[in-house]
Amino acid sequence: MSELAELVQRIQPAAQDWEEKAWERLRSQIRPRGSLGRLEAMAARLAAIQRSLTPAVGKKLIFTMAGDHGVAVEGVSAYPQEVTKQMVYSFTQGWASINVLARHVGADVRVVDCGVAEDLPGDWPVVHRKLAKGTANIADGPAMSRREAIAGIVMGAQLVVDAADQEGVQLFGTGDMGIANTTPSTAIVAAFSGKSIAALTGRGTGIDDEALKRKIVVIEKALTINRPDPEDPLEVLSKVGGYEIAALAGAVLGAAAAKAPVVCDGFIATAGALIACRLVPAARDYLFISHRSQEIGHAAMIELLELTPILDLEMRLGEGTGSALAMNIVEAAAKVLSEIKTFAEAGVTDTGC
Amino acid sequence: MSELAELVQRIQPAAQDWEEKAWERLRSQIRPRGSLGRLEAMAARLAAIQRSLTPAVGKKLIFTMAGDHGVAVEGVSAYPQEVTKQMVYSFTQGWASINVLARHVGADVRVVDCGVAEDLPGDWPVVHRKLAKGTANIADGPAMSRREAIAGIVMGAQLVVDAADQEGVQLFGTGDMGIANTTPSTAIVAAFSGKSIAALTGRGTGIDDEALKRKIVVIEKALTINRPDPEDPLEVLSKVGGYEIAALAGAVLGAAAAKAPVVCDGFIATAGALIACRLVPAARDYLFISHRSQEIGHAAMIELLELTPILDLEMRLGEGTGSALAMNIVEAAAKVLSEIKTFAEAGVTDTGC
Repeated sequence: MSELAELVQRIQPAAQDWEEKAWERLRSQIRPRGSLGRLEAMAARLAAIQRSLTPAVGKKLIFTMAGDHGVAVEGVSAYPQEVTKQMVYSFTQGWASINVLARHVGADVRVVDCGVAEDLPGDWPVVHRKLAKGTANIADGPAMSRREAIAGIVMGAQLVVDAADQEGVQLFGTGDMGIANTTPSTAIVAAFSGKSIAALTGRGTGIDDEALKRKIVVIEKALTINRPDPEDPLEVLSKVGGYEIAALAGAVLGAAAAKAPVVCDGFIATAGALIACRLVPAARDYLFISHRSQEIGHAAMIELLELTPILDLEMRLGEGTGSALAMNIVEAAAKVLSEIKTFAEAGVTDTGC
Repeated sequence: MSELAELVQRIQPAAQDWEEKAWERLRSQIRPRGSLGRLEAMAARLAAIQRSLTPAVGKKLIFTMAGDHGVAVEGVSAYPQEVTKQMVYSFTQGWASINVLARHVGADVRVVDCGVAEDLPGDWPVVHRKLAKGTANIADGPAMSRREAIAGIVMGAQLVVDAADQEGVQLFGTGDMGIANTTPSTAIVAAFSGKSIAALTGRGTGIDDEALKRKIVVIEKALTINRPDPEDPLEVLSKVGGYEIAALAGAVLGAAAAKAPVVCDGFIATAGALIACRLVPAARDYLFISHRSQEIGHAAMIELLELTPILDLEMRLGEGTGSALAMNIVEAAAKVLSEIKTFAEAGVTDTGC
């Protein structure tokens, strides 16, 4: 069996019976029924994922997947491609937004070179898994081969499975780095949703009106030339995706295979999650969407996934920054279930409300 | 000068010049301008509050203000009054929702008996500041005297000022406990907003349709009998408020006086914050609204305060639970400002986007 088929076969839906047991305990805690709102639903889901009434998600790891994009030559980003490598260096030094927010919530960050265009020195503390030096330009043809797309997924999944199995990581986060990567992400959501590209295309890191018009034309061209079949997620990924997006999809599948919750970041990470859930619908049981991104196409992704983001702080940064903040809320939900006493345990009058 | 006048006089607006300096640094950090959304606005506000580009909010304390309400006899709550004391006991044992969530974010909790109806044993680890054994029934007349309302405000403010001055607390949270206290809180927002009571009255801890109808009638009666002048916040507080609401208002004023940020919880705590900001508009500069409560009248309070809640997790519990979760986000904002490097510091290519 292929590695991808093995991965897919390992993924089981979350355990409904544990979800029900969790709701029973949540309803018996010393507070009005339902008063902790969405924390309760998250708590019950964590119970179903870990098959436990005391889900533990204290050991947290964010994978920031980095890759470059041939389509950057079309002038679709506000930043030059060299910034991908510069930002990866900043991540290794602890200088960037993701480092600050991950430290704040007690999560580790692991940066993966999935397909950065420039060579990264071998002694940089990143996970060196370069599949290629950036994708091909999707405005001219496919981003990568189907074989490469599969390799990227398997790679991302393996990193997560290994971290769960060998290091005991209990909660995963995903994040991205890659100049121009809102362009393939928009192409992906356009392919799956069938919505108009103009309505899905945002300003990414902050392009002006002229560049935005150009970006829309480029994405239209990419979809016209590549004609990805929305029923074939691997084709969507290989034709208009990216190496880091493949790894982001893989990370979600890896978490599901390892029966671990995974919090996905904004626009690019959710593009990866969308690929993952189209490949294996049960993976969605393990997925939390960290926040509602300001990038306009994100709303269509969330709609397709039928999931509600945890936070809405008007962020649009990537790197895993939304994942970091939301991990703290997910961890709070786990503690709600395991630590709040019941009416019976605490001797508080219960009126059943 | 009276204690209240002294308190009011100590409150200065946050420092606009520091807010501008903070924005300058935020715009020069290695990420697209504005990409951290509302975290940036929070960070700039923290700089303005603490007069610093490295605001520090690590030492966190939540005051959970407890009090009872004579109006409980009208059958406006799903729980009997004895639950106030039982929950205070649970807080002292670390069993309740607020204990779990405060521990999670590294905040201390201090429970204050502002006006619990039952006697609390002197050896319980709560701050014993009982102003009276519950308020009078607002459906029959004023909740308390104007003198008591002022005493409650001054008491709450003093606790916060002392914690800032003597213990070095850097970030405050507010929370409430008190059976029936959504009734006075609804009366307060009705008095200030002039909106229809039916449109502002929610189910609190979970009353049924019949009790909801009764609650609306009771609040209408309370406003008809007491006729609080919305231009006189002390009158609103004394006529239709509560002892814990007075202390919650005081806590906001105390934080403003101590130049410390304060995160307020949901419906009841925001009623207190509303009183505070009506008394001293500059106090609003120090105030963060933790979350959008499910209690329907909360939206009108937020509208009056012209502030956006940090979280929206469909919670409606009180105790300070929303404050605890949101404190983690406020702390993240402080670190965003002080810890993320600038383009110049990190040697990353800046295109000014």
